[in-house]
Amino acid sequence: MRAEIIAIGTELLLGQILNTNAQFLSQACADLGVSVYFQTVVGDNSARLTAALETAKSRADLIICTGGLGPTQDDLTKDALAAFVGRPLVVHQPSLDKMDEMFRKRGIHMVESNRRQALMLENSDPLTNDTGLAVGVALTHDQTHYVLLPGPPKEMKPMFEKYAAPWISSKLHHVSPLYSRMLKFAGIGESSLEHELLDLIEAQTDPTIAPYAKEGEVAIRLTTRAGSRDDADRKLNPVEQQIRSRLGHHIYAADDVTLEEAIVQLLKQKNKLLAAAESCSGGLFSHLLTSVPGSSAVYRGGIVCYSNEVKHGLLNVPMDLLEGEHAPGAVSGETALILAEQMRLRADTDYAVAITGVAGPEPSEGKPVGLVYIGLARKGGSTLVERLQLSGNRDAIKLRSVKSALYQLWKVLSNNG
Amino acid sequence: MRAEIIAIGTELLLGQILNTNAQFLSQACADLGVSVYFQTVVGDNSARLTAALETAKSRADLIICTGGLGPTQDDLTKDALAAFVGRPLVVHQPSLDKMDEMFRKRGIHMVESNRRQALMLENSDPLTNDTGLAVGVALTHDQTHYVLLPGPPKEMKPMFEKYAAPWISSKLHHVSPLYSRMLKFAGIGESSLEHELLDLIEAQTDPTIAPYAKEGEVAIRLTTRAGSRDDADRKLNPVEQQIRSRLGHHIYAADDVTLEEAIVQLLKQKNKLLAAAESCSGGLFSHLLTSVPGSSAVYRGGIVCYSNEVKHGLLNVPMDLLEGEHAPGAVSGETALILAEQMRLRADTDYAVAITGVAGPEPSEGKPVGLVYIGLARKGGSTLVERLQLSGNRDAIKLRSVKSALYQLWKVLSNNG
Repeated sequence: MRAEIIAIGTELLLGQILNTNAQFLSQACADLGVSVYFQTVVGDNSARLTAALETAKSRADLIICTGGLGPTQDDLTKDALAAFVGRPLVVHQPSLDKMDEMFRKRGIHMVESNRRQALMLENSDPLTNDTGLAVGVALTHDQTHYVLLPGPPKEMKPMFEKYAAPWISSKLHHVSPLYSRMLKFAGIGESSLEHELLDLIEAQTDPTIAPYAKEGEVAIRLTTRAGSRDDADRKLNPVEQQIRSRLGHHIYAADDVTLEEAIVQLLKQKNKLLAAAESCSGGLFSHLLTSVPGSSAVYRGGIVCYSNEVKHGLLNVPMDLLEGEHAPGAVSGETALILAEQMRLRADTDYAVAITGVAGPEPSEGKPVGLVYIGLARKGGSTLVERLQLSGNRDAIKLRSVKSALYQLWKVLSNNG
Repeated sequence: MRAEIIAIGTELLLGQILNTNAQFLSQACADLGVSVYFQTVVGDNSARLTAALETAKSRADLIICTGGLGPTQDDLTKDALAAFVGRPLVVHQPSLDKMDEMFRKRGIHMVESNRRQALMLENSDPLTNDTGLAVGVALTHDQTHYVLLPGPPKEMKPMFEKYAAPWISSKLHHVSPLYSRMLKFAGIGESSLEHELLDLIEAQTDPTIAPYAKEGEVAIRLTTRAGSRDDADRKLNPVEQQIRSRLGHHIYAADDVTLEEAIVQLLKQKNKLLAAAESCSGGLFSHLLTSVPGSSAVYRGGIVCYSNEVKHGLLNVPMDLLEGEHAPGAVSGETALILAEQMRLRADTDYAVAITGVAGPEPSEGKPVGLVYIGLARKGGSTLVERLQLSGNRDAIKLRSVKSALYQLWKVLSNNG
């Protein structure tokens, strides 16, 4: 079944509100095994809404409209569909009774326009509104299914889940639900990832293989239709194995978790404590780690050593290492090593990460923007130092330096802890 | 001019990401005086993308596409438009040179598919990508204007503002340009702000008065059309004065800058140094401050004292203040005060901020989620402590605690420095 989602409201076209309904309905359709091919947004205008319905009917079997069921003159979704399919509007008595009772209880006079919210199309199925007044509508006409939902998310979501989803399911025949699996990668860029898997991606039919990149991480989503979770696993497992055989050392999770969530979980499993000394990342490592609920059990904290005074005063880096004509400088492997080791000692942890580099926009110490050193001190083990040349603007370099540090830590934790 | 926005990406149709680009571009078009009549979302599929272009061409003078300019096989926006308007793809040499140089600098081999990002249509105008690799495209064909932008917001937004908006403006005739002014507020919520200004907002005609809320800050945007900047100022100034007379003590800027940018500027003007001790905010204060280029001149760094061990070991908070049946605890005014004062001494700065509270999701020390204490230590002055009860989830409480601390600092800096 091919679906199209039409969100109706001039406020969407003016950018005053974000179209979160389209995201919710797309996810919900995917869960039902319905493929969404288009989303459309149109204003509160009868002619343009009718044009959008015509276009949608030419390319979809299911048209889900959200918005325009309210009491005002701008709310014309039901009128437009009634004219489009040639069925009159009729009163849905239970909705009108409910409205009457509510107004009577509150002791206020019901404005006549409110009655519009109790209208439905003749020979359609009402969709109850448990959290508002406007009744929803579902109907099939000329082999196309239509579902009309209110615009406010707090009315639309419960109506969809409780009433519209079962109605849509009843129209589906012999379609198996979608099952998907997310493989999350670290230490590899989107284009390198795709380069390594190009033959698999190009040959994909079932399961499908789709790469994603966001927030400094890359992922592969494997998706298939199957009669059950077990059947799906039988189709997904071999593809995952094939990808793992090539890039397994970059896969930190087979689930949609962030790298920092994976690190917190690993530290908890191994009962280890962490601290961080951050120069160029300026607190972002700590911020991401402490965004994970429960991170306080494994993350003791750290020092944002943004100036040489703090590197020296709080983390004992000798001033003649930091400054002077022949000194290695703050951005150096030597400094990264001392920062990591001193941080670990001061916070009394099993591991400490250090990040020092040039986030830009200007070079520093005559070193180029994007040069970053990562230090990783380990209790009872030698300290690791890695040199990176990262690209991007200031924000991107901060984020990539943090993700690189997390990847170093993940490698150590997942190999020997 | 009638515009249509087409966002391209299967991840949007699966509901994996929210279509924030459509909102941004709709707002931006409204600012330019361009009316958006439709938004469309289509997947990474050549036939359906072409169909969307055909539909859009039949009803719009300007078609703005976002997404599908990247290096992968899924990225086919330029190919689809090239076929649609019948113009071949050609290399934009400066973009290719920039890419070559970037990969050479990083010392890694450029995967061939990356070259696709330097392609543009013959006889089109390139739109420079200052924050990424894929060049944008603008062209007019058969009286329809086309603008192709990348999908990642951090590339799309700067490209639109700096290059696409002027290109679109040059195609508009006889429309006075829009002038707008952003008033940025701190220490006040969106609904209180709106409540205070409701009569002005409801009576607005020209200039328009629009409230915005994002990233823990609220703003008012005043907009008018005028023949010149001077004419615009004559219309905007009285409205700004009216708002200032009511809420001036909450207005930290009459420009679209963040609170942290305003703080960095104030510290520079007054030649003062800052440090921060962060417990519940977990490094976010440092991260936001160090996201401002040039912040290293005034921000020395700080300590993320996420555990009592670090509060005690690195910031001298007595253990019997932190733990014990009758102790005030880590989340207390006493602890906030010591953290701020000790941080200022250790980093040798003029000011030090301390943030300690309960970010959630669980209560801590028997104290409710959202309880936060802000400390502000001042060289040669008394330390200020404020108690707040914030609302929202973990992320929101972290952000609001940081913005509250910045607001405290702004009040002190803007009054007496």
